[in-house]
Amino acid sequence: MVGIDFGTLSGRAVVVRASDGTHLGEAVHAYSNGVVETTLPGAVTALAPDTALQVPDDYRDVLRRAVPEALATAGVPAHSVVGIGVDFTACTVLPTTADGTPLAELPDLAARPHAYPKLWKHHAAQPQADQITTLARERGEPWLARYGGKISAEWQFAKALQVLQEDPEVYDRAERWIEAADWIVWQLCGHETRNISTAGYKGIHQDGAYPDRDFLAALHPRFADFARDKLEHPISQLGERAGGLTARAAAWTGLPEGIAVAVGNIDAHATAAAAQTVEPGRMLAVMGTSTCHLVNSESLAEVPGMCGAVRDGIIPGLWGYEAGQSGVGDIFAWFTRTGVPGDYAQEAAAQGLSAHELLAARAADQPVGGHGLVALDWHSGNRSVLVDHGLSGVIAGLTLATRPEEIYRALVEATAFGTRTIVETCERNGVPVHDITVAGGLVASPFVMGIYADVLRRPLHATDSDQGPALGAAIHAAVAAGAHPTIQKAAVAMGRVRRDAFTPDPGRADAYDALYAVYTELHDHFGRGASDALHRLRRIRNATLEGNR
Amino acid sequence: MVGIDFGTLSGRAVVVRASDGTHLGEAVHAYSNGVVETTLPGAVTALAPDTALQVPDDYRDVLRRAVPEALATAGVPAHSVVGIGVDFTACTVLPTTADGTPLAELPDLAARPHAYPKLWKHHAAQPQADQITTLARERGEPWLARYGGKISAEWQFAKALQVLQEDPEVYDRAERWIEAADWIVWQLCGHETRNISTAGYKGIHQDGAYPDRDFLAALHPRFADFARDKLEHPISQLGERAGGLTARAAAWTGLPEGIAVAVGNIDAHATAAAAQTVEPGRMLAVMGTSTCHLVNSESLAEVPGMCGAVRDGIIPGLWGYEAGQSGVGDIFAWFTRTGVPGDYAQEAAAQGLSAHELLAARAADQPVGGHGLVALDWHSGNRSVLVDHGLSGVIAGLTLATRPEEIYRALVEATAFGTRTIVETCERNGVPVHDITVAGGLVASPFVMGIYADVLRRPLHATDSDQGPALGAAIHAAVAAGAHPTIQKAAVAMGRVRRDAFTPDPGRADAYDALYAVYTELHDHFGRGASDALHRLRRIRNATLEGNR
Repeated sequence: MVGIDFGTLSGRAVVVRASDGTHLGEAVHAYSNGVVETTLPGAVTALAPDTALQVPDDYRDVLRRAVPEALATAGVPAHSVVGIGVDFTACTVLPTTADGTPLAELPDLAARPHAYPKLWKHHAAQPQADQITTLARERGEPWLARYGGKISAEWQFAKALQVLQEDPEVYDRAERWIEAADWIVWQLCGHETRNISTAGYKGIHQDGAYPDRDFLAALHPRFADFARDKLEHPISQLGERAGGLTARAAAWTGLPEGIAVAVGNIDAHATAAAAQTVEPGRMLAVMGTSTCHLVNSESLAEVPGMCGAVRDGIIPGLWGYEAGQSGVGDIFAWFTRTGVPGDYAQEAAAQGLSAHELLAARAADQPVGGHGLVALDWHSGNRSVLVDHGLSGVIAGLTLATRPEEIYRALVEATAFGTRTIVETCERNGVPVHDITVAGGLVASPFVMGIYADVLRRPLHATDSDQGPALGAAIHAAVAAGAHPTIQKAAVAMGRVRRDAFTPDPGRADAYDALYAVYTELHDHFGRGASDALHRLRRIRNATLEGNR
Repeated sequence: MVGIDFGTLSGRAVVVRASDGTHLGEAVHAYSNGVVETTLPGAVTALAPDTALQVPDDYRDVLRRAVPEALATAGVPAHSVVGIGVDFTACTVLPTTADGTPLAELPDLAARPHAYPKLWKHHAAQPQADQITTLARERGEPWLARYGGKISAEWQFAKALQVLQEDPEVYDRAERWIEAADWIVWQLCGHETRNISTAGYKGIHQDGAYPDRDFLAALHPRFADFARDKLEHPISQLGERAGGLTARAAAWTGLPEGIAVAVGNIDAHATAAAAQTVEPGRMLAVMGTSTCHLVNSESLAEVPGMCGAVRDGIIPGLWGYEAGQSGVGDIFAWFTRTGVPGDYAQEAAAQGLSAHELLAARAADQPVGGHGLVALDWHSGNRSVLVDHGLSGVIAGLTLATRPEEIYRALVEATAFGTRTIVETCERNGVPVHDITVAGGLVASPFVMGIYADVLRRPLHATDSDQGPALGAAIHAAVAAGAHPTIQKAAVAMGRVRRDAFTPDPGRADAYDALYAVYTELHDHFGRGASDALHRLRRIRNATLEGNR
């Protein structure tokens, strides 16, 4: 099987054995144009702030380069490959013609920023997102609660509305508005599909329908038929066969024409298969710069502050819940960049450690609570469960004896408390969480993971693959190719998990309960309306900077 | 005139002209033994934690060395000097025999730590201070409110009770328990005096009496006669002549025998004369590692959280109010030491700046509120107006874009908000503050002072002498010698003040009002009982560290 993970800066192909998931080979190809944030390729006009675009052919290059190279490193004959699956960052979305040609590739539109794919982290559509959320709240749209009461600027509708408002000609020329995950599958199998996961989590597709015509017309008269004209298409279940590999794609990849191409998927969601978190109540936490939490449940429940609740969204037949923490690893990185004195940096260099490792080593032996600190992990706002990006970080308990490694530790603990808040909110609202599996870059830190195990009072399982998303994509491919009957069964055979990789210490867990109680007090005080202090600080800051622009 | 300022590590003598305060010469002598914190001189036994002692003869060395040297640099003949005055750190207190011989100088007691002067920052008597405060509260002692409801571990009674409890023989041998300010005057003029300032602010002397015998007996049966036996002595007003310089002291100093020796005083309080803040409603803020605020008023008022309200305590005939902020410059120093990355240190070195200067330069141009931060300046607890050393520092509003210079600025602002809280508390409770004069090391920072002027919405006057306390002592000497009739008149003639040294900008002041409102919300929430979070963190920390000792 071949699985391809399309990330923010590169695409990675892996070759794995369908019977047991054994990793046979892999290759990475970095996008030539990376993230387009300042000017379009070859142009000089500055792009608007918060713009983040990509170039479609960079994605095809992954097919042309990484797939053959992964096959070569695997040392297996191409004809032994029977399926291919992909996962993609999301919501990364682009306008195309009816035949799937990206508008960015039409000569007369190549100089138009809105013709290009908008990467997930394109945040320039915030005004449109606010407009959508406000209108949905006013009209009492039933789907709003499934997204924690807030539609993100990153998602399909906000980005499309931005195009309509700012470049109506590009909007009109877009016959299709499609997730990159589905577009790359189109490139592979030659026809359009729409996977249920991006449709549900990023496209507001709920109970079989997109937001209705009246709603869209109220946003903008010319937006009324957006869903019908540019999105509507039969929805495909995850693990389904999207089609057979075309001759053209076979030529690009070196794979046999006609092999199964799986329906596309979101990167974190594909990881659920690799992590075997495909049964109800098994939570996956993909921990990197931010954290994405996924858990399946038999039934629909209204859990406050979710990023999305989507039927069949992670696994066919189950309700898939997604939650998120906006800042995790990037908070730690901010602190190591701005809060660590020079002598620490020198010592880290002398010992051959990263700043993270030095801070962790210095903080690791301190008993829980010995620093006297509690932080709120809201440096990037709070997605789950407060859904409030006007919040900001707090640290309390500072003294003249407080050391940098203690602040670092308090920040790590704060993110663990944030995860515990999400877990408890799920459980209190009818979505049980029986166990937790961790994936992503932070799993490599025993310091961070030990704190999470203690704070969550549970053993943590960990994915045992550096390529969780790509392995997940390959698992989906195996199902699409008929090598396994269901994603669940394929996950059991092919997934890679270290059970009980990190286990809690009862004494430390008890001590954390006391700190978590303080965290919760501050969380609720600043986050649930008792104090508007953080919002006032944000308003003062924004008004000040606006006035001085 | 000669004024001598006895500090924590050295004594400094200045020679000034009596008519107009012109600075003629000065000299410093560092105490040979400095602060005795680990072992007694020549001994190996470790002293108890939080012990801070000094050696009496180090004080005499200042008379022997610094005074003659200051005279020499002044180039004035010794016979032209007509008076000498001193100020001292307080409460620095020592046990002596009836003739003023320090017990530390008795051969059989020289190895006993409790025979030595206890420096102001000797904090080992905290249990005794707590005992005194608790009992006073239980008994409803009327004097307690004049000290903000709390008797400090630094003061005379707590330190004496510690001696009684830990070394009763030294306690019994102490015929006198005397402030170093009064002891050094005794060395100069040959007989004991007790100045009203240390008696009032450090000795709980109120309405003409010390705490009564019943109260003291309830602390410890053998403490019942402490005040009567070891403290009682007629109280001297500030600016009075304590006596004439003895032949022995004349030989030490090179000054004429018989010249006027002024009654002793506290260092910050002496500064009030140099700063001309000797009329009602003129506040002096002495700003260094911590800040001491002094203001006079015609009448007694109960102002919450004062360090002391003492009749005649700063100026005869007026009520002298003292307030304090436990952490100011030491918070800034903590941050520059622990919170500034290596590249900042390198840039500071390259530009020839201190870390403070670099941070100030980087933060100075940002518009008020542009950082979106508010801090609570409680890293050393809060003296005025909350009188709560179980509090700790908080910083709110952090984002991934927050830079070190922004946190530094927020910390400076927090201390300015703390001063504003004290000023407003005085005014709301019947102690008007018409204007504010600043003194101390932080006056050298235009960045810090500019923020204070804006936050306080007032022009700040500043002492125009590097030797405020010693100049103040010389002013007191001039009064004692009859060169001026009152401290007020002497201050007008001899004081040194730059009027309107720092002036507020109305726009910035308005912007600070908004931030101050957020500060006050957090101050009251965490400091006045709505939230116990900071105390809980402190209890958790202390219990944790205790359990791991």
